[in-house]
Amino acid sequence: MIGRTLWAIAEGYIPSTSVDPTDRAFVSHETACLLNAGDEDAEVEIMLYFADREPAGPYHCTVPARRTLHLRFNDLDNPEPVPRDTDYSSVIRSNRPIVVQHTRLDSRRAEIALLSTTAYADA
Amino acid sequence: MIGRTLWAIAEGYIPSTSVDPTDRAFVSHETACLLNAGDEDAEVEIMLYFADREPAGPYHCTVPARRTLHLRFNDLDNPEPVPRDTDYSSVIRSNRPIVVQHTRLDSRRAEIALLSTTAYADA
Amino acid sequence: MIGRTLWAIAEGYIPSTSVDPTDRAFVSHETACLLNAGDEDAEVEIMLYFADREPAGPYHCTVPARRTLHLRFNDLDNPEPVPRDTDYSSVIRSNRPIVVQHTRLDSRRAEIALLSTTAYADA
Amino acid sequence: MIGRTLWAIAEGYIPSTSVDPTDRAFVSHETACLLNAGDEDAEVEIMLYFADREPAGPYHCTVPARRTLHLRFNDLDNPEPVPRDTDYSSVIRSNRPIVVQHTRLDSRRAEIALLSTTAYADA
Repeated sequence: MIGRTLWAIAEGYIPSTSVDPTDRAFVSHETACLLNAGDEDAEVEIMLYFADREPAGPYHCTVPARRTLHLRFNDLDNPEPVPRDTDYSSVIRSNRPIVVQHTRLDSRRAEIALLSTTAYADA
Repeated sequence: MIGRTLWAIAEGYIPSTSVDPTDRAFVSHETACLLNAGDEDAEVEIMLYFADREPAGPYHCTVPARRTLHLRFNDLDNPEPVPRDTDYSSVIRSNRPIVVQHTRLDSRRAEIALLSTTAYADA
Repeated sequence: MIGRTLWAIAEGYIPSTSVDPTDRAFVSHETACLLNAGDEDAEVEIMLYFADREPAGPYHCTVPARRTLHLRFNDLDNPEPVPRDTDYSSVIRSNRPIVVQHTRLDSRRAEIALLSTTAYADA
Repeated sequence: MIGRTLWAIAEGYIPSTSVDPTDRAFVSHETACLLNAGDEDAEVEIMLYFADREPAGPYHCTVPARRTLHLRFNDLDNPEPVPRDTDYSSVIRSNRPIVVQHTRLDSRRAEIALLSTTAYADA
């Protein structure tokens, strides 16, 4: 089973603005790409950490067996939405091994900017 | 022999559009850069994972001894092409140690955007 | 406790110019995102390395328990500011496990460019 | 001593063109950022791997004790220059522990694009 069960993404920031907010593909967003290459569903918990308040979460999601979930932090709203224009970090725990990659698309200007990195996998 | 035999790239997304689709260098694409620094050819199998269907593959390729292969996911078509505008992830297995890095060039707008990360190497 | 206590970022470069230097969000900057998911404050020391002079530092900061600190290298000034348009690297030591990610926003041109990577965690 | 002695960067590509080729800061380039945080000089050897020919190198450089070297692949010319518009990969060996990060600035269009990742550190 490829992957790990404990991951962290230290960078987090969702810009509140987008040049064209009507096209979902181009709305500024941050994504945690979660791959479950195994044969059993993975139950995932995400905690969000901030600069000046207690953490939010846990947020819950399921990554089915042999599936990927490109989870937009923008879409999280239970127990609370992710604030925009605010620094955060995330810790991702799964009951099955998964692989996590972080991506941001920033469309505050006319042209998009992208960043991505494999998340930190704890030993 | 530098490298590992099992790698994963959790992020995957090939935009269907490019401002200038006639210039291959600037067509929106995703690449898995595969380095085989060893003295024997590496036989590589790639599986693709999606959000809402069973995996595709395996795709097969050979990275010859002492060579690099910058494999465009856009070019994969056996057993099936990679759908555009669709979230996916990939798992890459090799019978010899290799090193894998993921890159996307996005040219949906007039200016290009780039992302890259060393893939996840399984222990 | 997720994380490690010794990290390095080999890339470092703060552009001296920005198209719009009045908007802090868009000023060219480099950030070390530091996540302390543990229940005790982390005391952090940062050393900066250059091409042609002895290292600068240590710079000191605290990442409180269950908090993230997105530290702009631009803002460091004790014991000395970080020179602009100058290659540097950084080593980050913490007395508690933390997770470190590196990000640069470059706004020397009209459009922004972004890069990010999980830092190197020493074994 | 922080770092490792064997690193690889699977991605490599130096665009031959730049909108403004007279300004070194904005010429399209690829960089290996090499940090030697130790107290002894590090002697480094770089091998370049290609898609369809034998490797080039070794290229030699020294990263002095407590220094960083942001080495542009564009500047390598002994034993031979790095071809432009050509896929390559690199393997970096050092006699002392170092940390390696890979960056590309792409200025083929009016606006720059950036990518960066911590290189692959072999176990």
